[in-house]
Amino acid sequence: MMRTRPLKVALLGCGVVGSEVARIMTTHADDLAARIGAPVELAGVAVRRPDKVREGIPAELITTDATALVKRGDIDVVVEVIGGVEPARTLITTAFEHGASVVSANKALLAQDGTSLYASADQHGQDLYYEAAVAGAIPLIRPLRESLAGDKINRVMGIVNGTTNFILDRMDTNGAGYSEALDEATALGYAEADPTADVEGFDAAAKAAILAGIAFHTRVRLDDVYREGMTEVTAADFASAKRMGCTIKLLAICERSADGESVTARVHPAMIPLSHPLASVREAYNAVFVEAEAAGRLMFYGPGAGGSPTASAVLGDLVAVCRNKLNEATGPGESAYTQLPVSPMGDVVTRYHISLDVADKPGVLAQVATVFAEHGVSIDTVRQQGKDGEASLVVVTHRAPDAALSGTVEALRKLDTVRGVASIMRVEGE
Amino acid sequence: MMRTRPLKVALLGCGVVGSEVARIMTTHADDLAARIGAPVELAGVAVRRPDKVREGIPAELITTDATALVKRGDIDVVVEVIGGVEPARTLITTAFEHGASVVSANKALLAQDGTSLYASADQHGQDLYYEAAVAGAIPLIRPLRESLAGDKINRVMGIVNGTTNFILDRMDTNGAGYSEALDEATALGYAEADPTADVEGFDAAAKAAILAGIAFHTRVRLDDVYREGMTEVTAADFASAKRMGCTIKLLAICERSADGESVTARVHPAMIPLSHPLASVREAYNAVFVEAEAAGRLMFYGPGAGGSPTASAVLGDLVAVCRNKLNEATGPGESAYTQLPVSPMGDVVTRYHISLDVADKPGVLAQVATVFAEHGVSIDTVRQQGKDGEASLVVVTHRAPDAALSGTVEALRKLDTVRGVASIMRVEGE
Repeated sequence: MMRTRPLKVALLGCGVVGSEVARIMTTHADDLAARIGAPVELAGVAVRRPDKVREGIPAELITTDATALVKRGDIDVVVEVIGGVEPARTLITTAFEHGASVVSANKALLAQDGTSLYASADQHGQDLYYEAAVAGAIPLIRPLRESLAGDKINRVMGIVNGTTNFILDRMDTNGAGYSEALDEATALGYAEADPTADVEGFDAAAKAAILAGIAFHTRVRLDDVYREGMTEVTAADFASAKRMGCTIKLLAICERSADGESVTARVHPAMIPLSHPLASVREAYNAVFVEAEAAGRLMFYGPGAGGSPTASAVLGDLVAVCRNKLNEATGPGESAYTQLPVSPMGDVVTRYHISLDVADKPGVLAQVATVFAEHGVSIDTVRQQGKDGEASLVVVTHRAPDAALSGTVEALRKLDTVRGVASIMRVEGE
Repeated sequence: MMRTRPLKVALLGCGVVGSEVARIMTTHADDLAARIGAPVELAGVAVRRPDKVREGIPAELITTDATALVKRGDIDVVVEVIGGVEPARTLITTAFEHGASVVSANKALLAQDGTSLYASADQHGQDLYYEAAVAGAIPLIRPLRESLAGDKINRVMGIVNGTTNFILDRMDTNGAGYSEALDEATALGYAEADPTADVEGFDAAAKAAILAGIAFHTRVRLDDVYREGMTEVTAADFASAKRMGCTIKLLAICERSADGESVTARVHPAMIPLSHPLASVREAYNAVFVEAEAAGRLMFYGPGAGGSPTASAVLGDLVAVCRNKLNEATGPGESAYTQLPVSPMGDVVTRYHISLDVADKPGVLAQVATVFAEHGVSIDTVRQQGKDGEASLVVVTHRAPDAALSGTVEALRKLDTVRGVASIMRVEGE
């Protein structure tokens, strides 16, 4: 039963993702029509540079006036792949006001303004879908929002940035230093000219905010996410990790507290055991590990970025939103009913791997151990290694609140016998 | 905006899965109501043994008359966790006729009669959801049907039976033989008293039929699935696999042919490289690897069975179906528009690992190689090992149609110098 009047789609942005969305919409038009129950038509493409040659896109569809396009009144779905906060935000709300649903791949905008965008979609009876915003082609938003809707998610822990995973994987495999591995990532197109958003964890933090909100049915703002980049991870850290049977990954971790009354979200490098499924995620792949009360431990793995994978996620959403349009219904909206507060990093319970440069003389270990005890932090293992009057002391703690652990480190720095703190790394996944 | 009249749910079956569904519906009632937008009420539970004590389920809800329960007329959703073909099939169609949508975990029934059940659901404007039927709690049906609805899936390859994965994992790890590993699986409750459905691949074949139908938007019947069990996998096979850098898994493989004009579905043990993500799936876990044109390579991993994980999948579907009820809409139905034919096993392109016992004399390899050449099968590697006039010859082929490969093996058996074919195993995932 095929409706013959096509659903009209406006595409905002025609870069790597947008051009791939347009290409698939054209080459796979019959498949999309069969799966939706009506044909879909590319009704307009808003771009910044109208004179660029865009293969397969008729020139008459190209416009530089994105606002006029979303205001046309005959658009059923707006696909926003511009990125950034403005003008994307205004265009999306304008689309809702003019009766269009929106598919977006814009993690920065959703992390910052998800709540107001949801409210606008809801007010105008439109859909807001954004599978492509987190972990590219990996189906993640829909499984969390829908497949696990009858379960209680306790933890989401993942590798959600391909650039940094590529760099860390190279450091692990080749023993490369950070800047050498970054150079390789840049040369291969995995890292941008300015890699700050990736290597400082901003990109992963935006995704953590989105994931935490969905997983715990509450609102998590970008500012709520604790963030540490991975630019200070060294070859020595990897050597330490190997001795512990671990590797190092930049992780986004969203957790429900033990009492269930609050949640936390954070991004930082961490050691994880080689036996953990996330440890074997190589190159620029992404993977997200989910722990739910009834379902147990799940993992979702795939390419986290790139034109084609991101386009796949956008098109999956486009099919769903178009089906909803035909049904005159909308999919699940924002679910923030639990209103759980977000706790600060100090409340997170984790483990530290601390590497200290110390004086090689009797009594140092006793001094150090006393500091840990004074902060209520229990030690799991200590490894001492001495040479030429200098020694290193590697301490791995048991689980303790991050505030107690960081307090311990501060106190250790003040000891005369501690020459320096060579590295601190959290240990996760055990 | 919460509707106050509850949605009424009838539960058919109250075994391991059903009792967990009932428990979560009770203990998490507020969460489910918030996520659905209306409360859900357990309105009746059909069981075979009414006198059994069922903690947390009020006695007045228990009935032995499942037919009367689904015919009551006030039931919004029927959850079918009885399993088997009858009476499940009749109860499900009766539910549709009486205005109820259905959530089912019944892989055998869906593999056999999915098409007629879909038609019945469609005719009566009801939903049929069955995430729990394949790979337990792992969100798989929804990602394939919805997240990848804008993509073209070329292959689905997975470990979809936890019992056999547990047995093979034990054989791999401990060097145990099949029957020893089966005994351990039975003792630990991973294998049933009669393990036939698992070890002979019937369970996996039902799942393969369901997955192939969804992935390729066509109809794949249980009879269309080629099936080989794993009872003849030996410790020697694992030793051979190790020498090749492989392990052995029982795989369900659904593929689109190279020309895109047909599909295949099969279940058999196969060697896969240790570097493949499926190789590291241990114990009774399941994982499904999906290759799509735009999305690339995805993997979904988690517990494939058990009361709680299966209940999680059932409840996710329950939430979706209830939301659809409130929207007076239905979710995506069967999509079989491509009408792609299912090709026989002989057309599948694969590789063989063949281990032959041969006479240890000159000219044997030339004879054997001639047989491969006559069948158009190209040899990748040969390994010879001789002792006491006997020798073994291990041949790994390049990719060829299964018919040519099996024809080669038949011809090899007829050679005087071939004392026996010690093992044949397909090689996948490269």
